[in-house]
Amino acid sequence: MCKECGCGLVDVTNKKILEVFENILKHNQLQAQHNREHLERHKVYAINLMSAPGSGKTTLLEKTIDILKDKYQIGVIEGDLETQKDAERIKNKGIPVYQITTGSACHLDANLVHKGMHYLPIEKLDILFVENIGNLVCPANYDLGTHLNVTILSVPEGDDKPEKYPLIFKSSDLVIINKIDLLPYFDFNLEKVKNEIKKINPKVQIIVLSSKTGEGFENWISFIEEKIKNYRNENR
Amino acid sequence: MCKECGCGLVDVTNKKILEVFENILKHNQLQAQHNREHLERHKVYAINLMSAPGSGKTTLLEKTIDILKDKYQIGVIEGDLETQKDAERIKNKGIPVYQITTGSACHLDANLVHKGMHYLPIEKLDILFVENIGNLVCPANYDLGTHLNVTILSVPEGDDKPEKYPLIFKSSDLVIINKIDLLPYFDFNLEKVKNEIKKINPKVQIIVLSSKTGEGFENWISFIEEKIKNYRNENR
Repeated sequence: MCKECGCGLVDVTNKKILEVFENILKHNQLQAQHNREHLERHKVYAINLMSAPGSGKTTLLEKTIDILKDKYQIGVIEGDLETQKDAERIKNKGIPVYQITTGSACHLDANLVHKGMHYLPIEKLDILFVENIGNLVCPANYDLGTHLNVTILSVPEGDDKPEKYPLIFKSSDLVIINKIDLLPYFDFNLEKVKNEIKKINPKVQIIVLSSKTGEGFENWISFIEEKIKNYRNENR
Repeated sequence: MCKECGCGLVDVTNKKILEVFENILKHNQLQAQHNREHLERHKVYAINLMSAPGSGKTTLLEKTIDILKDKYQIGVIEGDLETQKDAERIKNKGIPVYQITTGSACHLDANLVHKGMHYLPIEKLDILFVENIGNLVCPANYDLGTHLNVTILSVPEGDDKPEKYPLIFKSSDLVIINKIDLLPYFDFNLEKVKNEIKKINPKVQIIVLSSKTGEGFENWISFIEEKIKNYRNENR
């Protein structure tokens, strides 16, 4: 019943929705844990790439693969609402890739990633990249069982985004600020953004780079290699 | 039970989720219809602005208000996960504004907009703008009771977005391609994008503009004024 205008509509039973949502997250958490066990059995280090649409996830991934593919066996799970385009771009690099098209779902979940893991030759991989759906809201809620959550923020999106979408920055281990070659054309205050991100998540690391020009890209590469070294030492 | 590895995890009961989701959408549809009746009783024309984060919704709205505020009474409902920043930008224009912060929800729904409508002096307004959460996925599913769905796509997001996020383009009456002053710096094929959008939604109108330089902005303004004229003729 609408208090303001007495229109007689009942409110959505929020309690029921919350219950179902909690159940989904609980199940997702179990599946994520199971995924992690799979990955650890095969000593695969998994990285979840999240961002808004158009921040340059696929281009960053292509360049990363070019640099690392002779040293590590890489596999990719690609998430999109529709189209196989990103998967085709990765396949052109000679890398095994599994495309998930979610139709209308705004994020990947641990169950979808689990399917992808069984499709890929998981036992042969060193690194598994998961490219999530382009979205700054939903992916933050779903643990995929990966070891590293990376959020990419690109300069054209604006320097107010961490403050406006804090959850995804809070759930990240690393934030990449991408497309810094475009800084001259945008009113984007790099120091302010870094401070905002650190305020939301004091433990997060931040790497500033341009996938296009390659500036700062070596920091991302050595970050991954360091993580893999530590992971292997822990999983001996 | 996982077929591939026999891990014993049961799948999420998708049927139950779908049932709840259908109930939510059914309720939302009723509430949207109620909103429309409210708006029509007061002869308010309502416009739902949707886009990815950083496409320039608020800047477009500020400029639109500057041009139209002496001719029409304008009200704004602002949707954000967090912060009152966008609402403050609008308030600085001397316009009544209601800020909705959704916390973690990735879209506005008809119920939230209904609350906003009762907060604003709806009986005095000519135009109500609703700025949705920055998201190319979720807002497409929720009718808010507005008369016009507008999706904004900005050049830096890339020309592959309509194909990858078709649902929001399908549910739009108008697509604005924004930030065309940046075309020289991006590999963005304007004709290709227009064709893709028309393929997804043959009835949609497309306006190409830059809120920054003002190029093409007059087409958006006359589009709104034409719509309001027709709306008033129908609601005499």
